[in-house]
Amino acid sequence: MQENREKCLELANRIYNLDEEVYHCVGSSLGRTFTGNKENTIQNLCMLMLTKPDGHLLRSELALISNMARTIKDKKKKTQMMTEYDNILKEIEALPDSFGKIDIVDLARAELNPTARKKLSENDHLVICISRTQGSAGNDIGFELADDLHINYYDVEIFNQVLTRLEAEKGSVNDTETEPFADFDKYRKRNFRLKTWFREFNRYHGLPRQDAVFFNMSDLICNLARTEDCVIMGRCADAILTNNHIPHLSLFISAPFSLRVQRIMASKNMDFHHASRFLRQMDRQHKKYYDFYTDKRWGRPENYDLCINSANYGIRETIDLIERMINREKEPASGSL
Amino acid sequence: MQENREKCLELANRIYNLDEEVYHCVGSSLGRTFTGNKENTIQNLCMLMLTKPDGHLLRSELALISNMARTIKDKKKKTQMMTEYDNILKEIEALPDSFGKIDIVDLARAELNPTARKKLSENDHLVICISRTQGSAGNDIGFELADDLHINYYDVEIFNQVLTRLEAEKGSVNDTETEPFADFDKYRKRNFRLKTWFREFNRYHGLPRQDAVFFNMSDLICNLARTEDCVIMGRCADAILTNNHIPHLSLFISAPFSLRVQRIMASKNMDFHHASRFLRQMDRQHKKYYDFYTDKRWGRPENYDLCINSANYGIRETIDLIERMINREKEPASGSL
Repeated sequence: MQENREKCLELANRIYNLDEEVYHCVGSSLGRTFTGNKENTIQNLCMLMLTKPDGHLLRSELALISNMARTIKDKKKKTQMMTEYDNILKEIEALPDSFGKIDIVDLARAELNPTARKKLSENDHLVICISRTQGSAGNDIGFELADDLHINYYDVEIFNQVLTRLEAEKGSVNDTETEPFADFDKYRKRNFRLKTWFREFNRYHGLPRQDAVFFNMSDLICNLARTEDCVIMGRCADAILTNNHIPHLSLFISAPFSLRVQRIMASKNMDFHHASRFLRQMDRQHKKYYDFYTDKRWGRPENYDLCINSANYGIRETIDLIERMINREKEPASGSL
Repeated sequence: MQENREKCLELANRIYNLDEEVYHCVGSSLGRTFTGNKENTIQNLCMLMLTKPDGHLLRSELALISNMARTIKDKKKKTQMMTEYDNILKEIEALPDSFGKIDIVDLARAELNPTARKKLSENDHLVICISRTQGSAGNDIGFELADDLHINYYDVEIFNQVLTRLEAEKGSVNDTETEPFADFDKYRKRNFRLKTWFREFNRYHGLPRQDAVFFNMSDLICNLARTEDCVIMGRCADAILTNNHIPHLSLFISAPFSLRVQRIMASKNMDFHHASRFLRQMDRQHKKYYDFYTDKRWGRPENYDLCINSANYGIRETIDLIERMINREKEPASGSL
């Protein structure tokens, strides 16, 4: 402790002197960082080094000195000052309980995050889970990203087809021919029939149909993520994979409401009123699904690795950004292999 | 229009054939994408190309074919299939009103976004605005990022000091000596005095003091961003710079509440109860300040370019991620010039 105090006193002296020297070199109109009495200043600096909770104030003082030092015109002087600044910073960081010492990291999650440069095993795959708000071009981004990276793409339509076929294979369903465009009907209201209800009750072992689908979907998503590189759109894939300790990157793509409305108006030939209502309804549905199955709150930045505002980039630039993040920038154009 | 229809018919035929060929190569247990009658399938595919609103369903069908094609073992066959897939995709994208045609982009904002690879003029600077939740290590990340990039760092303590000095220079304040650690007192309650109120009323031309400070701060932030590369913490800098059409990257750094509580407990020597209460209070204050001055909602992904969950990366990896995004990866260690 005594040793620590002496080290702090030495550092405080060096900080005070650096400030003085930088001031002489710059002659800044803002004057010196420390304008008070030398002895008091050094006492205060020592105190900042010894009191953890206010350590960030010391860092601000240092930043202020280095901000000024960077404006020194004489190159030799500047190098000299910045070298002393670097040394002081390193020595302070080496003090026990210094600022920057306490990391914020969820190790279990970071180890499964392919963009955190943690060591993934060779058997792990690049799995990118994308959640998005309707109208923010999340689907276009996911599709083109998968195509760029030459990896598989899965969205709700594909999952539904795959699940339908898996069921058909198991022989548990043979009531309708597998119909490639069955999803055409999915936004139309269907009449509820008791007969249908009973059939579905038996088929899904008493689980409500949507829960059964969710569990089948979860199995499928885990199997995919264990065996191949892919982009998975929605379906709470991020939460499912986290629960199953399978590495993946989780992205949330959104854009301001006004821009999403404009895009829906253009892409779906809707007027402003209908587009707004449609978006609000879709946002509610997304939220309900995610909140129900994950017990977290949809669209909150702390639930994903990264959130991207696609309106501030556009489709192509968002894809480029993601590729830079995962260190897989697009190679010069060639075949899709 | 007629020409368009013929083109769609040709493409639909090629898609049907591709699916058939891929199926023969793979022999997938999942079977073909299109299991129905050929004529009907081609009619349906044409319809999908001609009806904008459901265009994404066509994309899903194509993705399903390419997902299977990628599993073909025979390399020559695979190249052949993927080349035909690429060609079909390009031709569909070239159709009027095809999927992916309608971008989501706020041009005014994207042009000022240094990570969107838009052409910034040579006079523009790299300005990184960081908002964050308390306890998510946002300050540590900002400070170390600035240090890595050798650019200036500004946080609330530095702004306050600079503003105090600028005021002192103008000669408008001489009631106290400029005190380097005045901020020590800032969380202590001070007694409200009528005399102080009158003095501040005159000094700020009748504006409430906090608004006057905000406007001075805004001027300072704009001046900085116009003249140097820097990292700016908080102060709604992103909104201020957007309003003034000054290029900048806006980041929001957050982490799950439970991890922030753990970090505050460690860094401020608080127990769980106090740390939770402190964080909730700070979140409320941040929110109030941001919402009041920007008219937007704090912490919503659509208000920033990017949101990063620091807990899923840790301090160092978050910085590396940001450096990859702005294409400025850390050079091998050297002096801070």
